[in-house]
Amino acid sequence: MPILDHDTVQLAHGAGGRLSADLIGRLILPRFTSPELDRLEDQAVLDLPPGRLAFSTDTFVVSPIFFPGGDIGELAINGTVNDVAMCGAGPVALSVGFVLEEGLPLADFHRILCSMEAAAKRAGVRVVTGDTKVVGRGACDRIFINTSGLGVVPAGVELGAGLIRPGDAVVLSGTLADHGMAVMTAREGLGFSSTVRSDTAALNGLVRLILDVCPGVRALRDPTRGGVATTLNEFACAGGVGIVLEEASLPVRPDVRGACEILGIDPLYVANEGKLVAVVPADAAEAVVAAMRGHEHGRGAVVIGKVTDEHASRVTMITGLGARRIVDMPVGEQLPRIC
Amino acid sequence: MPILDHDTVQLAHGAGGRLSADLIGRLILPRFTSPELDRLEDQAVLDLPPGRLAFSTDTFVVSPIFFPGGDIGELAINGTVNDVAMCGAGPVALSVGFVLEEGLPLADFHRILCSMEAAAKRAGVRVVTGDTKVVGRGACDRIFINTSGLGVVPAGVELGAGLIRPGDAVVLSGTLADHGMAVMTAREGLGFSSTVRSDTAALNGLVRLILDVCPGVRALRDPTRGGVATTLNEFACAGGVGIVLEEASLPVRPDVRGACEILGIDPLYVANEGKLVAVVPADAAEAVVAAMRGHEHGRGAVVIGKVTDEHASRVTMITGLGARRIVDMPVGEQLPRIC
Repeated sequence: MPILDHDTVQLAHGAGGRLSADLIGRLILPRFTSPELDRLEDQAVLDLPPGRLAFSTDTFVVSPIFFPGGDIGELAINGTVNDVAMCGAGPVALSVGFVLEEGLPLADFHRILCSMEAAAKRAGVRVVTGDTKVVGRGACDRIFINTSGLGVVPAGVELGAGLIRPGDAVVLSGTLADHGMAVMTAREGLGFSSTVRSDTAALNGLVRLILDVCPGVRALRDPTRGGVATTLNEFACAGGVGIVLEEASLPVRPDVRGACEILGIDPLYVANEGKLVAVVPADAAEAVVAAMRGHEHGRGAVVIGKVTDEHASRVTMITGLGARRIVDMPVGEQLPRIC
Repeated sequence: MPILDHDTVQLAHGAGGRLSADLIGRLILPRFTSPELDRLEDQAVLDLPPGRLAFSTDTFVVSPIFFPGGDIGELAINGTVNDVAMCGAGPVALSVGFVLEEGLPLADFHRILCSMEAAAKRAGVRVVTGDTKVVGRGACDRIFINTSGLGVVPAGVELGAGLIRPGDAVVLSGTLADHGMAVMTAREGLGFSSTVRSDTAALNGLVRLILDVCPGVRALRDPTRGGVATTLNEFACAGGVGIVLEEASLPVRPDVRGACEILGIDPLYVANEGKLVAVVPADAAEAVVAAMRGHEHGRGAVVIGKVTDEHASRVTMITGLGARRIVDMPVGEQLPRIC
């Protein structure tokens, strides 16, 4: 499949000259056309609605770049949309920065661009500015993608881990560990778990729904690297509170659980890319869960624990046998290059 | 020099757990402290003054990471400040995304962080959000840095290559090719040119000055990758005009010219990181040049050419011998990984 005048990325595609213009004009821009991007200036100029601005950045280095349920491009759009959305903002605009390795098949790059285009459309955001660099063979692993995102925080919306209070309920939007285990099993070539798929999804619609049902939501976060265990530890520390989980309530798909068991990995520590943790006042929990279950990305929503004034800054878990154990921050590296 | 509990970057520094928190909390945050960043949420929430917003992104992959006159960190701050500033905006906030290779000496990373801190202070911008990824040995070349930037466009300021008109003057703020040749000579170990230094600098102060003196400035751009030749070709195409350069007026330092001659490189195509090209109405050119010369980053300002209605979308040059030649877009790769 010949694309442009080459089959693979050339160093000159990143040199700022004619081949750069060709790559950008014929391969990249058609996927992201927006009034700001089409100006081809070094920056986008945006007229945003008034309000506080949310700004987030993330670089995606996942390996492999294609995995069951998604690819690095879809992940890069959804990941930054989610980081922007978790403060209650409505994501509006993204920047995209590519680092391409010389020799990357242009067909692979095109496939990634197409899935970025589709993901941006689904999330309702536009790509307004970008950058493309090419490095020699061996200087990066195929493709890295940085996305930075802007969103507008509605008036009156104020979320943050510091607002969490004893008595609050901890809600998880669905099953644990799907993304991380999809990447792991793809990487390790573990055929036994061919049904495990990434959960990558843009959660801004779900966030809007939660804010509608429960304007007093304390904090939202998408538990990516380090998993739900890390997110809850961050919440507990920032709020100076304890968090108690009910092991029996933690939703894990059977195939994901099987993969975790075989690899000796605790699903609480595995990255998710289409889930969120919401801490809400206890009296709102039922309504929030019910509303979330009516949304495509919240069908598995469930209360997984509560906030306490005991064991401040600690996450603990009541196990299936009724014992209590500490759920600590991870120390080492379980799953490199998962996002 | 032991930093943290290790001398080099470990995979676990990017895993989202305790070592990540250690790297971020003890090495990165102290260099960039800002109210937004210190919240440690997944996004910054900003209260910006009203006005249109400029948004830009750039990933820096320069090799070597330390070079005469600067390093990858300083470049990453100045480069995005400049991209934001070239539409007339005042840069306010940056995001920073690191990709670190396992094994990178933490002392090198610390040195880069310190020069980013100093560059951000000089430019008057704050780092408000960030991301750090670690990849295994061989999966990237030491360190890549993405910066994305936000700035506020003052009311009434409207710049763009499409506004360029025949008769306008083309002003360059100083000498050509310093950055690219500093990186090249460092990379090639060419001792003969030990005086060649990068010109990396934040140009937002100079931009403010130009706007004060000449509110009707048509377009500004910093000629980085592809050099002044590429910037002028982009201007000529976007404006549907011709641009004629006077070869004799092009400022090049003697040591840089010598390095270019030995390496067979035309300084018009070499990256600059502390220079700008301004297209201004002819009757404002003298005042603009005079004002620029009073600024530390514009001391070498000079008119290098003019806009014509002949040779539309073409850049031509009147050589020292009075002949006219075409200055085309570069096709191939002269200088990979210069920024």
